[in-house]
Amino acid sequence: MSRSGAYRSRILHITSTDPLKYEYLEDGVLLVEDGKVADLGAAEQFERAGFALGQCQHEPDYLLVPGFIDTHVHSPQLDVIASYGEQLLEWLNKYTFPAEARYADETYAATSAVAFLNSLLEAGTTTALVFATSHHKATDVLFEAAREKNMRLIAGKVLMDQNATTELHDTAVGGIQDSEALINKWHGNGRLGYAITPRFAGTSSVEQLTLAGELHQKYPDTWIQSHISENLDEVRWVKEVHPHISDYLDAYERYGLVNDRAVFAHCIHLTASERKRFADLGARAAFCPSSNMFIGSGLFDLAQMKEDRIDVSLASDVGGGTSLSMLRTLADAYKVCQLKGYSLGPMEALALVTLGGAESLHIDQFVGNFEKGKEADFLMLNPNATNVMSRRVGFSDSVEDEFFVMMTLGDERNIAATYVAGEKVSI
Amino acid sequence: MSRSGAYRSRILHITSTDPLKYEYLEDGVLLVEDGKVADLGAAEQFERAGFALGQCQHEPDYLLVPGFIDTHVHSPQLDVIASYGEQLLEWLNKYTFPAEARYADETYAATSAVAFLNSLLEAGTTTALVFATSHHKATDVLFEAAREKNMRLIAGKVLMDQNATTELHDTAVGGIQDSEALINKWHGNGRLGYAITPRFAGTSSVEQLTLAGELHQKYPDTWIQSHISENLDEVRWVKEVHPHISDYLDAYERYGLVNDRAVFAHCIHLTASERKRFADLGARAAFCPSSNMFIGSGLFDLAQMKEDRIDVSLASDVGGGTSLSMLRTLADAYKVCQLKGYSLGPMEALALVTLGGAESLHIDQFVGNFEKGKEADFLMLNPNATNVMSRRVGFSDSVEDEFFVMMTLGDERNIAATYVAGEKVSI
Repeated sequence: MSRSGAYRSRILHITSTDPLKYEYLEDGVLLVEDGKVADLGAAEQFERAGFALGQCQHEPDYLLVPGFIDTHVHSPQLDVIASYGEQLLEWLNKYTFPAEARYADETYAATSAVAFLNSLLEAGTTTALVFATSHHKATDVLFEAAREKNMRLIAGKVLMDQNATTELHDTAVGGIQDSEALINKWHGNGRLGYAITPRFAGTSSVEQLTLAGELHQKYPDTWIQSHISENLDEVRWVKEVHPHISDYLDAYERYGLVNDRAVFAHCIHLTASERKRFADLGARAAFCPSSNMFIGSGLFDLAQMKEDRIDVSLASDVGGGTSLSMLRTLADAYKVCQLKGYSLGPMEALALVTLGGAESLHIDQFVGNFEKGKEADFLMLNPNATNVMSRRVGFSDSVEDEFFVMMTLGDERNIAATYVAGEKVSI
Repeated sequence: MSRSGAYRSRILHITSTDPLKYEYLEDGVLLVEDGKVADLGAAEQFERAGFALGQCQHEPDYLLVPGFIDTHVHSPQLDVIASYGEQLLEWLNKYTFPAEARYADETYAATSAVAFLNSLLEAGTTTALVFATSHHKATDVLFEAAREKNMRLIAGKVLMDQNATTELHDTAVGGIQDSEALINKWHGNGRLGYAITPRFAGTSSVEQLTLAGELHQKYPDTWIQSHISENLDEVRWVKEVHPHISDYLDAYERYGLVNDRAVFAHCIHLTASERKRFADLGARAAFCPSSNMFIGSGLFDLAQMKEDRIDVSLASDVGGGTSLSMLRTLADAYKVCQLKGYSLGPMEALALVTLGGAESLHIDQFVGNFEKGKEADFLMLNPNATNVMSRRVGFSDSVEDEFFVMMTLGDERNIAATYVAGEKVSI
């Protein structure tokens, strides 16, 4: 059966995020049965137990790691990645909204959804938390495409009933009805999950935010995803749009949208009071380094967030972000952290995009590492993907250093193969 | 003859940097004879003049641009690219100096020089201003390798007689003698040039800096290259090492090392007084965005430098930098500029790495664009190098946007071919 297999390789995964621990098998075997991790151990042990190593696919040069998890990405925005010269609010109006409007066309939305998922898989991302557009149908076809690929994907239709381009507006009631229909169809359907998705407080009315909170209360194991405090103009503008709020977080908090199922992208300009409430409520922050630099939003302070005990995962935020590759995103994360005086360690980095991301999303019982019984989403990383990397890795004296080289220099080229639930993806 | 050829393609080059102007030929012909640009124009015009277009190598999907110019890079540091967790002074001691010490071995130095140049060419860089190590022989073999490849390269032996690891120290007099021998052997030899190369003020004695200034006076058409104001600890430390100086720039200025033949990497923390004298003396700044972020040095202020009328070019600064690709370096440059509130335009970006770089180095009579008679260093850029780029370029409505996509998402993958003096490089 194609969802089963035995893989002998160098194997690396995070076994605990707090305290940070990892396991590295220089010559390991990963046994996959029916899409799940059946066993993991040193090749030597397997052999001693009578296992015939010859039946393994043997990849001594590769590094097997769990599939990457991207906790904030916009599927339609692959069309506007690398759009020039704007900061957030202008960038939305000039590039993003016109591009998202194309997703009213169901056929276009369907082919684009497949292209988006293929690009994720090509980059080694097997799970993502995804903003679709405000179109019911475009969201539906994204789920359909993810089911076809058997991916563990969480997504949601964007709720946006004001202050965007009219053609993308839903209505407070209509947007919630669409969301509920999608929850009933897709949430818990196979590996799929639904996230209630108010774009951000600026583009949702009080009525829409209220109804979104109520919808989550009705379906408490759905997710919530939104944006917060990305850009100083945005922070000011949201307070103008909602003059009754005490601060930006309050625009979500008062409607029951801030809890441990909620993932907020950016969190760059949160005040100390906002950070405290954010932590107390257990909300999750998605660190989007390439996006935050590309549209000039600012530098996320990972050390501060850790000090405040806020849960952080990593996100590409394409199309504000400039790569779907979580390796390349980690390169930018490292740079942002260095500029803030903090050195992001390679194993902490690997945790961010595997087990840590899974924990942020409460899906660590399914994915994130190679614990027995988990779903076998994994990658074969090729450290020799380019001449420069190959030369540099030749000087490596540890797997930490080797992974650091890949996260600093690497991208899709390092992804020799992607497996989803035990099955090799062909793109 | 292999150094001649006719290329029909989309062709883009910068024709003037001030004011910024470019020429784009949607269907152009570049005619190369004996390694030089013999003619350039629209295919239609060539045909009308009786030229048989069928003899051209026809690449309608590629974009032909001049070879890239990297104005600050360390050849031995390819071995320490992507080294974890330090800022400048610790990074030098922990990673860089031990790596450079290996270049005492001439055989190792020779094979490494070839690998370095191949990696440059693979990334589309045809000209660079290069720091070798403090070894006479290692510098000699770098020039030898560049001559073999017929590259327009400027390089120099590092002068460093104090405060590094002892095995890398030269002496004030001995270092200058070695430099002069290398000048006599290589400066003006074919396409090669010599740069007098005090590493930075902290690792040179007053005697060495004095002699370096005198050497440049003796050979005024050599170049000078060094570092300045990269990191705040470095700035403080240089003032401790040289308590007689009024500020960091003064450590070079008083020895005759600041003029229009001098290229200083970084220039992040220059004071207003330093910037004014820097501009008045016509010195050149090399903007090293990936390095400045990777080792946490700070954010270069391009808009400020322009306002101060300081000449700026772009540099990878490998191994502090994280890529030899000037495309990927431009992605980081754009991000640094966005964080400083300035949007680096795609044609300004192209100028930085072609004609602008050539002008900074006073070699624009030889390279930098496709003016008739210039040396034919050029690249074939493939905008469809990845699925993500290809999809995004499908929405492009201009060559500016298309180049912006390549500089934001791209790297070595976009370099379909590199030509040096008319000859296709095989790596």
